[in-house]
Amino acid sequence: MEWEQCWLRYRAVDKYKDFEAFRTISYNAGDVCVASAVGELKKGFAAMLSVNARAYKQAVSPKRACIRLEVKSDEACFESCGQEGYNVSFDGKSIAVCAFAGVGILYGCFALLRNISMGKAIEQICGVSRPDNPLRMLDHWDNADGSIERGYAGDSFFFKDARVLVDERTKDYARLACSVGINSVVINNVNVADEAIFLITRRYYRPLAKIARIFRAYGIKLFLSLDFAAPIDIGGLETADPLDEAVRRWWGKKMSDIFSAIPNLGGFIIKADSEGRPGPFTYNRTHADGANMLARAAKPYGGSIIWRCFVYNCQQDWRDKKTDRARSGYDAFMPLDGCFEENVALQIKNGPMDFQVREPVSPLLGAMAKTNQILELQITQEYTGQQKHVCYLPPMWREILDFRTYCRESGDRIADVISGKTYGNRICGIAAVANTGNRPNWTGSDLAGANLYGYGRLSWDTELSAAEIAEEWIMQTYSRDASVVEKTLRILMTSWPAYEKYTSPLGTGWMVNPDHHYGPNVDGYEYDRWGTYHRADFEAIGVDRSDKGTGYAMQYFEPNAGRYNSVDTCPQELLLFFHRVRYDYMLKTGKTLIQHIYDTHFEGVEDVRTMIAAWESIRGAIDGDLYERTLELLYGQLEHAMLWRDVVNTYFYRKTGIEDQLRRQICT
Amino acid sequence: MEWEQCWLRYRAVDKYKDFEAFRTISYNAGDVCVASAVGELKKGFAAMLSVNARAYKQAVSPKRACIRLEVKSDEACFESCGQEGYNVSFDGKSIAVCAFAGVGILYGCFALLRNISMGKAIEQICGVSRPDNPLRMLDHWDNADGSIERGYAGDSFFFKDARVLVDERTKDYARLACSVGINSVVINNVNVADEAIFLITRRYYRPLAKIARIFRAYGIKLFLSLDFAAPIDIGGLETADPLDEAVRRWWGKKMSDIFSAIPNLGGFIIKADSEGRPGPFTYNRTHADGANMLARAAKPYGGSIIWRCFVYNCQQDWRDKKTDRARSGYDAFMPLDGCFEENVALQIKNGPMDFQVREPVSPLLGAMAKTNQILELQITQEYTGQQKHVCYLPPMWREILDFRTYCRESGDRIADVISGKTYGNRICGIAAVANTGNRPNWTGSDLAGANLYGYGRLSWDTELSAAEIAEEWIMQTYSRDASVVEKTLRILMTSWPAYEKYTSPLGTGWMVNPDHHYGPNVDGYEYDRWGTYHRADFEAIGVDRSDKGTGYAMQYFEPNAGRYNSVDTCPQELLLFFHRVRYDYMLKTGKTLIQHIYDTHFEGVEDVRTMIAAWESIRGAIDGDLYERTLELLYGQLEHAMLWRDVVNTYFYRKTGIEDQLRRQICT
Repeated sequence: MEWEQCWLRYRAVDKYKDFEAFRTISYNAGDVCVASAVGELKKGFAAMLSVNARAYKQAVSPKRACIRLEVKSDEACFESCGQEGYNVSFDGKSIAVCAFAGVGILYGCFALLRNISMGKAIEQICGVSRPDNPLRMLDHWDNADGSIERGYAGDSFFFKDARVLVDERTKDYARLACSVGINSVVINNVNVADEAIFLITRRYYRPLAKIARIFRAYGIKLFLSLDFAAPIDIGGLETADPLDEAVRRWWGKKMSDIFSAIPNLGGFIIKADSEGRPGPFTYNRTHADGANMLARAAKPYGGSIIWRCFVYNCQQDWRDKKTDRARSGYDAFMPLDGCFEENVALQIKNGPMDFQVREPVSPLLGAMAKTNQILELQITQEYTGQQKHVCYLPPMWREILDFRTYCRESGDRIADVISGKTYGNRICGIAAVANTGNRPNWTGSDLAGANLYGYGRLSWDTELSAAEIAEEWIMQTYSRDASVVEKTLRILMTSWPAYEKYTSPLGTGWMVNPDHHYGPNVDGYEYDRWGTYHRADFEAIGVDRSDKGTGYAMQYFEPNAGRYNSVDTCPQELLLFFHRVRYDYMLKTGKTLIQHIYDTHFEGVEDVRTMIAAWESIRGAIDGDLYERTLELLYGQLEHAMLWRDVVNTYFYRKTGIEDQLRRQICT
Repeated sequence: MEWEQCWLRYRAVDKYKDFEAFRTISYNAGDVCVASAVGELKKGFAAMLSVNARAYKQAVSPKRACIRLEVKSDEACFESCGQEGYNVSFDGKSIAVCAFAGVGILYGCFALLRNISMGKAIEQICGVSRPDNPLRMLDHWDNADGSIERGYAGDSFFFKDARVLVDERTKDYARLACSVGINSVVINNVNVADEAIFLITRRYYRPLAKIARIFRAYGIKLFLSLDFAAPIDIGGLETADPLDEAVRRWWGKKMSDIFSAIPNLGGFIIKADSEGRPGPFTYNRTHADGANMLARAAKPYGGSIIWRCFVYNCQQDWRDKKTDRARSGYDAFMPLDGCFEENVALQIKNGPMDFQVREPVSPLLGAMAKTNQILELQITQEYTGQQKHVCYLPPMWREILDFRTYCRESGDRIADVISGKTYGNRICGIAAVANTGNRPNWTGSDLAGANLYGYGRLSWDTELSAAEIAEEWIMQTYSRDASVVEKTLRILMTSWPAYEKYTSPLGTGWMVNPDHHYGPNVDGYEYDRWGTYHRADFEAIGVDRSDKGTGYAMQYFEPNAGRYNSVDTCPQELLLFFHRVRYDYMLKTGKTLIQHIYDTHFEGVEDVRTMIAAWESIRGAIDGDLYERTLELLYGQLEHAMLWRDVVNTYFYRKTGIEDQLRRQICT
């Protein structure tokens, strides 16, 4: 299968025709990452500048303009660039990329290529950059049989029919990931099942080591998802009790084997005691018991254990109004703060539920002052249109990163917490469920590539704006043409708000078909066992999570708790997440709740029409294939958005009998 | 796997200890069915009477008491018994079973055994009996891989992993079927897919012929479900157009091959142009074109073509209120009345939708005066509790058979129409989707065995009452103990009304989870593409199918049409099928519609409690295993009935805001 190069397409750039430096590359280190950097520069220069650059592992004459790649393993450089950062400078003739380590050189070169691809002036590409987050992860939910859980871009390129795939695409994946700053990749699904259980056995060491070596050349550590019951499933033991001596010994031996067989292994991620997965609860042990046992086994090899906090009662009875799934992560993990080994990090989903189009930020983030934390986002559009709808997610992530937890007086934003700035953690950062597959364009929908790109860029620099990320992506992927950039940017920036408008209103979430999670079904989860209820009746909708209700709002620090707790101060977009509200409640916009629901659903569809018009206005300005396949998706999105609008509006009209004030068409 | 014998358990009977005749059997014909009859008598007598009967193919001395089996191929006997009937008589000493053909002897002997098993007086077992329906079919939805569509009793005993199974169980199946009068069996799913497409190819002839021979010894004709696209899928032709000469030739040759290879083949059933199945519509041909083409090919071999009328638009948009799935069968087939070959029969589901717990009788039945018709019922409890709920269906079938179509002034009941009495058809009768599988008790739930038994008995004698059938079944299956009979009878007779009470109200149907169809989901099909909507809103529910609505009611003959057409005369149990009614509408019972919904849902659960109490009262009076496994099912049913009650009541409370007058617990 042939595949494309996404934002590494490297279209021709005229701008630098007379710029001599691009013809010569000098470098000072034999590091694999530096070798990759040289290769990337040559490739990029050839494609964009039609220059066949020559590279020398030696100093070139100072008279000669060149690109100088310089690893400087000294204190000054570490001080400014850190372990992974870089410094790009220009002396009027040559460009120098300096870094403390080879990987920094590589990141610096990708930055240089990005700026060239965007046609920036040489002076604008200078500066120091170092990543905000120590861990910048992609989590792939790829199964050993080649299927991908919640994958909307084809099958896996890591696995097929219980084999590990290693080929040219592995390298191109690493290039794409590295180019945006990713340094850690989990290649298999957190739901470890079937043959994937055996990935940590001898027969898979060799192909996994191959992947790890390819990754290493792009600064990426390999991670694997673990089956907590492996001592039973693989080891033949009768227990997986984390306090059992035989179990500890088994894991100790396993870690020793696997870390010596697979270079560059970063560690493991575990989904335990969640949605039917095995875990320490089976043995009346805590999450800390489970995580720490693995952490001690991995510690001698520098391995990290990433423990997911997605734990809740998935056998709830809808008639039970006391249990609140939103509370479960905090309730389960807060008591364990300070109990985890230093090479354990808890991976916490951005919201308390599960990647809905709108959720409050998880109150667990920032609350655990003595625990390493990783923010988990979802790039794959499970609940946000499954890559059939355009839904550009960086604006949502921007809000999350900017969210003030008030866990201290300042430096308390989510971005600060996960980067380690707040509490000084070192094993921390950001992870996201990847949206890739083996489709030629990697993400099924081309525009979904902006989410993958944007996630990587934000993981490196948590201060970037969603719009500037989008512009970067558009210029590299489609065109630098001003109209293409402007129109595509408008589409991307319109898309998440539009999706939110025509789907579930004001933080309710979950109005989707069960299992596959695509398409509208207002009561789809309403009488089910998943703890995800809106409880709409004839006069009101929403769950009271204030101190008079489930008390979830009280899990936040003040002033967040108070702000969420009151219907008057609760942000409107989360109103129905925190409160039960009558349909005739007057919002601050001067509209009733029901009218807001009707209006947003009509508006959301109109927004999609606007997106289509914007796209159609650039016909001819980008490659015809790229144009057509997105156009087709957009028309499909429009039809499906209309279905969403009609199902939701009809549902509420049928329930309330309240007419739309503007008398638009609602099916009765 | 060991299996049980259901109602052929043959428990010991003391009553006939001094009755000499059971020691000797004489018979006068070498027919395979007579041989089966002799075997069945010996088996039954040995088990029930501890008598080792001796059989003689000759007249025994008139002085000696015996069971005399006598095939009399003369006009007088044909006159009284018909092709398949029998005459049992007793002269004070011997019992004679006479019939025109061997199969009649077999039916007579099973009747004799049934009466013995029930402990009837010898005098009560005499009389002539002949079947009401020419075709008495069981349709198995068994797939070639061994799975069963809508099967709730394990896997297939006809197929496994693309092999045809032929073993002792095949014979025991034939015995069970024959004992209640079944004479035609379709062994494979009407949705013919995968390997089942190739059942009509050479490699399957031998095992199918084996099954056919076993069936023949029990008077059963083998039928197969056909893939209409077989000329393409098997034959390698480019079309399956029924008017294409090559297609006709292909089918002609195929029929010639298969009828000569498989003895006792009755014909074929086809689900065409339905739910994605191939059919004549692909080629702009009619159902008649399709059916007749096959019928002409099968005719030289005496084969019949059974053509299912389950044709509707399964891609409907819920926003489209003009299309009415209920109309579709009549609309599609009425114009074709008189167009079908004489060896074609249309198989018509009992209702216009799909085996809901309550539907009106299909208006197509009786309307097609010039077309052979078969009534299709469903024994497997797809929509009636999936054999986890007790739901004894003969009371429903009784109502269907008794339904007056008014297609003529008298002799117009469904029972008359399908038996051929109304229009003089010969290829006609009754079919039902079987509820069997390879579980030891055949039907998963023991009490579901009463449905299989009852269907067979009704197919033979359409005048039997549901209660007498139940009594027969209980006495043969569990015990003749009066208390067991009374209590179990009460459970069975309570079960269908109870199920109707706690599930979808007043003919709405469909309030189930999509796909698997188990458990409550009031809006489960409401915004879907299947044409199955209740359209409940804040003030009313139901679909107007009167002449002011979709006009479906007008498809009936008068006075049915008028009766259904008016909300005042429409039978209450079908009110919401035919009419859209406000929740505050006053029913003839003096209750509002909403109060009726609440009341029936509370009552239905109480009915299940009553069923459990009845069952618990016979603890010790039947075999402990039989007792326990049913008790466990009943408690599961109770819990699930409560879920049904609560989901439905909550749904309507949330929609209407109308309180239960009795202030019972409804989750808000």
